[in-house]
Amino acid sequence: MKKVLLASSVLALSAGVAFAEGIEFSGSAVMGVGDNGVDDVRSILETYLTAKGSGETDTGLAFGFETTIATYDTDGGLNDDGTSAFISGAFGKLSMGSVAEADEVATLSDIGGLSGLGVDNIAESFTGDSAGRETHDVNYTYSGGALTASLSAHLGAAGEGDGYAAGLKYAFGDAYVGLGYNDDNISAAAGTVLSVYAGGTFGAVGVKAMWSEWDPDAAGDSLNAYGVHVDYTMDALTLSAQYSAADLVNAAGSDYEAFGVGAAYDLGGGASVVGGVADVTDATRDGETVWEAGLSFTF
Amino acid sequence: MKKVLLASSVLALSAGVAFAEGIEFSGSAVMGVGDNGVDDVRSILETYLTAKGSGETDTGLAFGFETTIATYDTDGGLNDDGTSAFISGAFGKLSMGSVAEADEVATLSDIGGLSGLGVDNIAESFTGDSAGRETHDVNYTYSGGALTASLSAHLGAAGEGDGYAAGLKYAFGDAYVGLGYNDDNISAAAGTVLSVYAGGTFGAVGVKAMWSEWDPDAAGDSLNAYGVHVDYTMDALTLSAQYSAADLVNAAGSDYEAFGVGAAYDLGGGASVVGGVADVTDATRDGETVWEAGLSFTF
Amino acid sequence: MKKVLLASSVLALSAGVAFAEGIEFSGSAVMGVGDNGVDDVRSILETYLTAKGSGETDTGLAFGFETTIATYDTDGGLNDDGTSAFISGAFGKLSMGSVAEADEVATLSDIGGLSGLGVDNIAESFTGDSAGRETHDVNYTYSGGALTASLSAHLGAAGEGDGYAAGLKYAFGDAYVGLGYNDDNISAAAGTVLSVYAGGTFGAVGVKAMWSEWDPDAAGDSLNAYGVHVDYTMDALTLSAQYSAADLVNAAGSDYEAFGVGAAYDLGGGASVVGGVADVTDATRDGETVWEAGLSFTF
Repeated sequence: MKKVLLASSVLALSAGVAFAEGIEFSGSAVMGVGDNGVDDVRSILETYLTAKGSGETDTGLAFGFETTIATYDTDGGLNDDGTSAFISGAFGKLSMGSVAEADEVATLSDIGGLSGLGVDNIAESFTGDSAGRETHDVNYTYSGGALTASLSAHLGAAGEGDGYAAGLKYAFGDAYVGLGYNDDNISAAAGTVLSVYAGGTFGAVGVKAMWSEWDPDAAGDSLNAYGVHVDYTMDALTLSAQYSAADLVNAAGSDYEAFGVGAAYDLGGGASVVGGVADVTDATRDGETVWEAGLSFTF
Repeated sequence: MKKVLLASSVLALSAGVAFAEGIEFSGSAVMGVGDNGVDDVRSILETYLTAKGSGETDTGLAFGFETTIATYDTDGGLNDDGTSAFISGAFGKLSMGSVAEADEVATLSDIGGLSGLGVDNIAESFTGDSAGRETHDVNYTYSGGALTASLSAHLGAAGEGDGYAAGLKYAFGDAYVGLGYNDDNISAAAGTVLSVYAGGTFGAVGVKAMWSEWDPDAAGDSLNAYGVHVDYTMDALTLSAQYSAADLVNAAGSDYEAFGVGAAYDLGGGASVVGGVADVTDATRDGETVWEAGLSFTF
Repeated sequence: MKKVLLASSVLALSAGVAFAEGIEFSGSAVMGVGDNGVDDVRSILETYLTAKGSGETDTGLAFGFETTIATYDTDGGLNDDGTSAFISGAFGKLSMGSVAEADEVATLSDIGGLSGLGVDNIAESFTGDSAGRETHDVNYTYSGGALTASLSAHLGAAGEGDGYAAGLKYAFGDAYVGLGYNDDNISAAAGTVLSVYAGGTFGAVGVKAMWSEWDPDAAGDSLNAYGVHVDYTMDALTLSAQYSAADLVNAAGSDYEAFGVGAAYDLGGGASVVGGVADVTDATRDGETVWEAGLSFTF
């Protein structure tokens, strides 16, 4: 009996500490070296400190906000890496701020594990806020069983046009298919984008693929971008490969295309050794071999 | 005896956790939509993350610091929303940094509950750091029973003039009266400002009123600004109305004047539904109807 | 037995709280007034909020990151006051980001205790990242018994030169000697710098001294900078004196030289009354008497 009493007072005290907080923190960091084909070999450091506030109304609606304070290089400088607030319940989840564009149903992972080698960016050339599109600031997402549906928008200020996106994701077992649609009336990249996603985890192998077509408002043909990512996990080691291409041409006259391989070894406790190498042709690289290697931490 | 011993070790551990922390966090956020008469309908997101450090000297003086990291819109970007440090004891409280100007004894609340519709700003045209005055960076406040007295100053750097302010507040029951004085020798708005405040809570009704007169150092008549705010609370619902006016004229030749009404419904757990509508004539609006509606969270 | 059991559950809960956190915070602030010889009497406020994340791999390597969000004056504005990540083990400690240059083996303390009066800066004119040198972004430090050895480097981006430094520190009892070497090929201050350090604590007296010689890559003689700092502690009071000089000449034709005295009185709980006065001749002051006085807090 005495034991129960004491354990209770312990719980009460701990709960008191947690409540006094109100805000929870998490963080991550990567450190290493790399050659991105533009700056030659350079040091890499990125750090992310995230504060989350959360609460619940009397009727059981969840609400919260989240802000991430980041540094992007070894010279530092504080950046807002995403700030948003939300309310959610049986009706779904309404978010504002730095939200996902709804057509980004299941984009590809980065290869490299530090700053990222940019292979996935080519596959994502037309979806979400890529290609200079305005970022969306409102997102509504509803999940009902296997189906997740999202709508997002950029609420334009005076004189601006608007942008909208919708997304659908259907999961079956450990696999999924998805469909995205983006209608942008704001930026120089105005037009509609249709995107299709599929992927899943099959034993030790994970696969993600995406394909998109941008139909510009301006005169000109429709353009495609696509990519596929494969993971293979053996105990603590994960190997990755990714290929992507887009109907875009750089200043040297080359088509955008990239292939990369990466590896991550889990050291436990939130630390991993990570690295990757890729051959990239995009706006700033023309068939250059880029690489990075180092450590990734989560806290 | 064993129980006491264990409870002590629990307290010691908890104190250790608290001490290891040293810093406490709180936060708030608003999200919604509004039309401020300048940007048309737009999304609203503001987030505030506040860190407070506090301690006590061996002789019982309290000291601390506080900094608030904020984002002001859906596009984010980190801002310093106020940073200060203080020491306090029987002698009163001395603060430095982002302190209140002492003549802001009891300014009006915002109407709208999100970004605010700016009705109160017209009543506060001449007090505090309004009208382009330098903000003060030192504040001394002494509270003795019903009376609170404050002094504040801008300590000018080389070549700058100085600014001073004083304030008195007297509380009786749930009501108060206040007097403020600001002597500004720094800015284009140089001159002296006398302000008078009164208000209180009478059952379900709350009232706040302020009146001020600016006697400019430059040639010209004295100018007045004033406003009154009324709240009515019924259970979870609070209704507000506010009127303000100032002897200022905008580019269209109209006198500054505004009237607004607002509502807030407490959802419990720190969340409220908030909104308001106002008719505002000031430097950027000329009799425009502005409004905002959304959610307000505290963590 | 029951006691042990309960104590274990208490520890488990506390550990749970710590783990749920992931990130620990600490902070400091200074507030006061001073005359730095440039701005006349002005208010001083600096605040520092530090987040630290730490973890341990399965094989016992420690890793972590640290970022400090600071305001440097009463007008505020958030600054990155240093962000870094590290991994350490039996092999030593590898850090990236805002790291110490390895030749800064044992630099002098500040006189004044608030913003600092700049006396130490003259002695440190040629070491570390002084004199416009690029800051280093990688540091490796190994401690073996009494000996600590460090290497650091600036990993240059495309077109930049590189910079390297090394440092050795040997401790015997409460005293130490140190040696630093910096080879800078990047900045206008390119050249090599040799530095020597010695100091220790002898009862109530603490002494720190440093001497350095810069051999510029550009034509010209080698230049020296040196300084000595003495502390004397009586209970809660610490008195300090510091002298420094460098072979540099300011616009008025005067040699860089400074002498200052300071005092700090520990109020307990992390608060101190601090202050100092100095006569400084450097790039911006020409034999000016500068001073500062106020409060210093740690949380």
